[in-house]
Amino acid sequence: MARQKIICDCDPGHDDAIAILLAANSPDLELLGLTIVAGNQTLENTGRNACHVLQWLGREQIPVYTGCGRPMVRDRVTAGDIHGKTGLDGPVFPPLRKAPEGEHAVSYLIRTLLASEGDITVVTSGPMTNLGMALRMEPRIAEKIQRIVLMGGSYTNGNVTPAAEFNILADPEAAHVCFTSGRPITMIGLDVTRKVLCYPEIVERMAKAGNCASRLFVDLMKHFCKAQKEVFGWEGGPLHDPVTIACLLDPGLVSTKPMNVQIDLSHGPSYGRTNCDAFGYLGLPATADVAVDIDADRFWDIIEDGLRRYGETEARA
Amino acid sequence: MARQKIICDCDPGHDDAIAILLAANSPDLELLGLTIVAGNQTLENTGRNACHVLQWLGREQIPVYTGCGRPMVRDRVTAGDIHGKTGLDGPVFPPLRKAPEGEHAVSYLIRTLLASEGDITVVTSGPMTNLGMALRMEPRIAEKIQRIVLMGGSYTNGNVTPAAEFNILADPEAAHVCFTSGRPITMIGLDVTRKVLCYPEIVERMAKAGNCASRLFVDLMKHFCKAQKEVFGWEGGPLHDPVTIACLLDPGLVSTKPMNVQIDLSHGPSYGRTNCDAFGYLGLPATADVAVDIDADRFWDIIEDGLRRYGETEARA
Amino acid sequence: MARQKIICDCDPGHDDAIAILLAANSPDLELLGLTIVAGNQTLENTGRNACHVLQWLGREQIPVYTGCGRPMVRDRVTAGDIHGKTGLDGPVFPPLRKAPEGEHAVSYLIRTLLASEGDITVVTSGPMTNLGMALRMEPRIAEKIQRIVLMGGSYTNGNVTPAAEFNILADPEAAHVCFTSGRPITMIGLDVTRKVLCYPEIVERMAKAGNCASRLFVDLMKHFCKAQKEVFGWEGGPLHDPVTIACLLDPGLVSTKPMNVQIDLSHGPSYGRTNCDAFGYLGLPATADVAVDIDADRFWDIIEDGLRRYGETEARA
Amino acid sequence: MARQKIICDCDPGHDDAIAILLAANSPDLELLGLTIVAGNQTLENTGRNACHVLQWLGREQIPVYTGCGRPMVRDRVTAGDIHGKTGLDGPVFPPLRKAPEGEHAVSYLIRTLLASEGDITVVTSGPMTNLGMALRMEPRIAEKIQRIVLMGGSYTNGNVTPAAEFNILADPEAAHVCFTSGRPITMIGLDVTRKVLCYPEIVERMAKAGNCASRLFVDLMKHFCKAQKEVFGWEGGPLHDPVTIACLLDPGLVSTKPMNVQIDLSHGPSYGRTNCDAFGYLGLPATADVAVDIDADRFWDIIEDGLRRYGETEARA
Repeated sequence: MARQKIICDCDPGHDDAIAILLAANSPDLELLGLTIVAGNQTLENTGRNACHVLQWLGREQIPVYTGCGRPMVRDRVTAGDIHGKTGLDGPVFPPLRKAPEGEHAVSYLIRTLLASEGDITVVTSGPMTNLGMALRMEPRIAEKIQRIVLMGGSYTNGNVTPAAEFNILADPEAAHVCFTSGRPITMIGLDVTRKVLCYPEIVERMAKAGNCASRLFVDLMKHFCKAQKEVFGWEGGPLHDPVTIACLLDPGLVSTKPMNVQIDLSHGPSYGRTNCDAFGYLGLPATADVAVDIDADRFWDIIEDGLRRYGETEARA
Repeated sequence: MARQKIICDCDPGHDDAIAILLAANSPDLELLGLTIVAGNQTLENTGRNACHVLQWLGREQIPVYTGCGRPMVRDRVTAGDIHGKTGLDGPVFPPLRKAPEGEHAVSYLIRTLLASEGDITVVTSGPMTNLGMALRMEPRIAEKIQRIVLMGGSYTNGNVTPAAEFNILADPEAAHVCFTSGRPITMIGLDVTRKVLCYPEIVERMAKAGNCASRLFVDLMKHFCKAQKEVFGWEGGPLHDPVTIACLLDPGLVSTKPMNVQIDLSHGPSYGRTNCDAFGYLGLPATADVAVDIDADRFWDIIEDGLRRYGETEARA
Repeated sequence: MARQKIICDCDPGHDDAIAILLAANSPDLELLGLTIVAGNQTLENTGRNACHVLQWLGREQIPVYTGCGRPMVRDRVTAGDIHGKTGLDGPVFPPLRKAPEGEHAVSYLIRTLLASEGDITVVTSGPMTNLGMALRMEPRIAEKIQRIVLMGGSYTNGNVTPAAEFNILADPEAAHVCFTSGRPITMIGLDVTRKVLCYPEIVERMAKAGNCASRLFVDLMKHFCKAQKEVFGWEGGPLHDPVTIACLLDPGLVSTKPMNVQIDLSHGPSYGRTNCDAFGYLGLPATADVAVDIDADRFWDIIEDGLRRYGETEARA
Repeated sequence: MARQKIICDCDPGHDDAIAILLAANSPDLELLGLTIVAGNQTLENTGRNACHVLQWLGREQIPVYTGCGRPMVRDRVTAGDIHGKTGLDGPVFPPLRKAPEGEHAVSYLIRTLLASEGDITVVTSGPMTNLGMALRMEPRIAEKIQRIVLMGGSYTNGNVTPAAEFNILADPEAAHVCFTSGRPITMIGLDVTRKVLCYPEIVERMAKAGNCASRLFVDLMKHFCKAQKEVFGWEGGPLHDPVTIACLLDPGLVSTKPMNVQIDLSHGPSYGRTNCDAFGYLGLPATADVAVDIDADRFWDIIEDGLRRYGETEARA
């Protein structure tokens, strides 16, 4: 069976890095490229982090395209201190050989999708600016997108405001454009990602793989869990972004429910909320598949499999 | 010890009726009066229903004041079909002898609170219009309110829209006025009231009390549970409103957390949402005690105690 | 012919004082009472100012009712320095004998309108809080209101923000309630009141009447014009509020056009704007008669007539 | 002296066509290219219309780039019937030889501005989508824009809603991005463009030039004025867009005032309003030069000069 083609649009970020790790070495996925957005850190930092991760994993052939450094309309939202000064504090990377391509991420998305046979899934794990911009710059790409899978939103509570999750709040207008594109869209929100908390025992378990990938996982998670504890008081950090890739690898991992989703664009206290009509109160057609539950044990198995697939020789120190 | 003075502002309504039942006969509460608002049904119906309930329970001496028939600013929201044509479908009441007083509920609230020693708790189990109007008409009552306890809102999801719960959505501006009054306020939202579902076995249990109150309970709940099943597909109906009274009777029944709460007044898709900052993301001072959990077993014990306290002789057929 | 019954709802305020002066002594109007709202100054000050003006003019028999000290929903907006510390800086009044009645303005409005034969015009020259509250507390008064004439709004630009005029911005929700009451409503906005600027030569002309009323006019306008110059840089102050009374006395004074009017309740930069559809762009039914022009010469004649009607003997020093 | 380099971003459209006519043959302007946006008509039509106009005028060497067919965030707003089925009803053009370039208008704007010495003025006479998108896709172009001159907005009333003018309402979010870009921006709004109404006698006067350009003007304006009369009831059509070019040719033509301008993004009744703080009420820094008056006679002289500069030999039939 053909491998599922994907483009990962991301802002690494610790949990983005694990998502890249999972996507870059799977026999079931063909990772065409990374498109980078500002979010967890500035565009300069998130682009550099993406290159570091791919180089470390021996996947330098996967191209990186930097994109939008600012949200479509609103002012920049700065993330908290979860990801540190570089956006990927923790690991010590070797000098960087790899650099982003010259083409803008939005141009790359448009060019690649237009040339495709409609068989590419776009996975976003940061603010949806790049995809939103691409959809407005060239609306014909919409029908070429096989599916959008995003980490973002929540059908209950946010994590930056009581109403909004970071990726959506950081660019509600881009999210609105993506959610109204008419394409199949799967929303992996906080409701499920908060169920995959990376406790110290998980870190110990993953360390046993003993290769470059597991070393990266361990270095990232030690910082991440420490930051989560300092900022939110939680023992384990939620591994938000990798759930997107994991549910491509194992479609039964996450259970979803079709819902009508409306992004709050009001600029009021609920700005950026993903209003997910789980009970069909509004009588409107469903516009997204919203993740409602996850099998956490299976998730960690997928992570471990992904780590172990990297051979020791691939380590780059 | 002195009984806690309360005024119940309500829109009966099946669950309001159980709240009244609980409040009207407790040795710990002094129910000064009922103030009536439109909500579950029109003002005419909710006022009549309040009189029916008190008359049936032999508590005709408790005065009923009808108030606002429309929300402060927005257009009327009509409730679904939960409460039926009369707003209290199910029981067959004898001819009505009792009638609402001539004074407007808002005037009664102002007069009574101004004359009080600051020892009255106002319990609202409908849209907060009457109290909001009273606070704006006579701001000096604010310091006379001991505490506001409301059934309304949700810190996760709504029950009319994905964002909003009925009582708040039906008058978000009134809720805003009450939540910004500066007085202690306890919010009993859907997050806990959805945990006290009245299943058929609960109805059977309460039937055993075998007096006028338990007959009313049974007749009300049979209709209510049937309607909940038809409208929402649930086996048991959530007994929202009585939780307010129950938590006055047993302060440990509900656990609460102080939170900053902002009502969404945006007129957008999140209009009427109670944005409760459970994790302190906004760094703003707490403005309400928000119920986060309830001991359901204890709740049903309180309901049963309340029913049994009515003697058989008090039945009015 | 019967005199037109009116209630003036106002927040004196220099220009309100001239409106009262005009209304309190006209053979064509029966001024039933003044209802007072906070606006140009606090409720305490505007109530006291109303009493001062009536006492000075020898019209102490006209009752004054104080009403709402805060807007229906929003936070208080404080007016600029136009009206000074007392809200009526300028004249030196004798010790006050007259006091507001005990009844709340909202109760008075409800009681008086309900008891009326539908022949009372309500003139508002401040924030519309009292009338908005009365309409929501007792919706049946709507059909008893003959007509609402308000000073407020603008179909072009505001005077507190680029979008909004003070009286509407100070309580947009109340204005919305009044504009959607279904009753005939005449909006005298800045578009016309800015055409009746009280220049020094007008003050000189009015001084010639030489009675108590003209002395009041002169004392008020000297302060008012000075303040307008300091705050806005204008040589003459716009005599906003008296245009309402003047157009009752002379229906041809102001030309109006029926328009659909929607109050902006968005809490954004246009909050409080009266969106008047002068050209019928929206294809919606007209909801108000909006003043579009005024005969300024005729206006000043009406003012002068009004002043001269007060005899010298009525002066109270 | 060097000619002023400009890029015209437009949606022709009758008045856009006159603006192009004026810009394409001026000794003072170097028209680098036209970037095309949907607005008065679909992108396909406005792109084709631009080519028709340049070909007719013998200016085929000026490149045309089509851009965004949809606004950045909101749904499409369809213009009224002013411009007819093609967007440029009236003239009969010869078969089209000229076609838009392959490059997207947003890419062209970014490439050209980045490569420039900061000496290019961007003139927009349609929805500001292309420039807004370019600013968000590549924020570094902001400092390369010499100045933005736009036809759009109003500091009084709109022309599609009571609050908003078409070009801004059609993409308020793009306008917000442009107005907050930090670059000098001159807003030519309805307040002045409504003062240059093209009456029949103007059409007659321009006909006398007797060349290809004047024939185009006459054919365009006959349709335009007829449509304005049918839609708005006006005898003369406002020649909105050419004022932008005319004020580049004659800086004294239009008088402007620096104002703080905030675009209403509320999605309420004032959505798309340009809140221009003409009187400094808000105490915020000025962000745009807003046109407040225009010398209409001089404007028509500029138009006539522009027409006459085209020689007869340039006509293309």
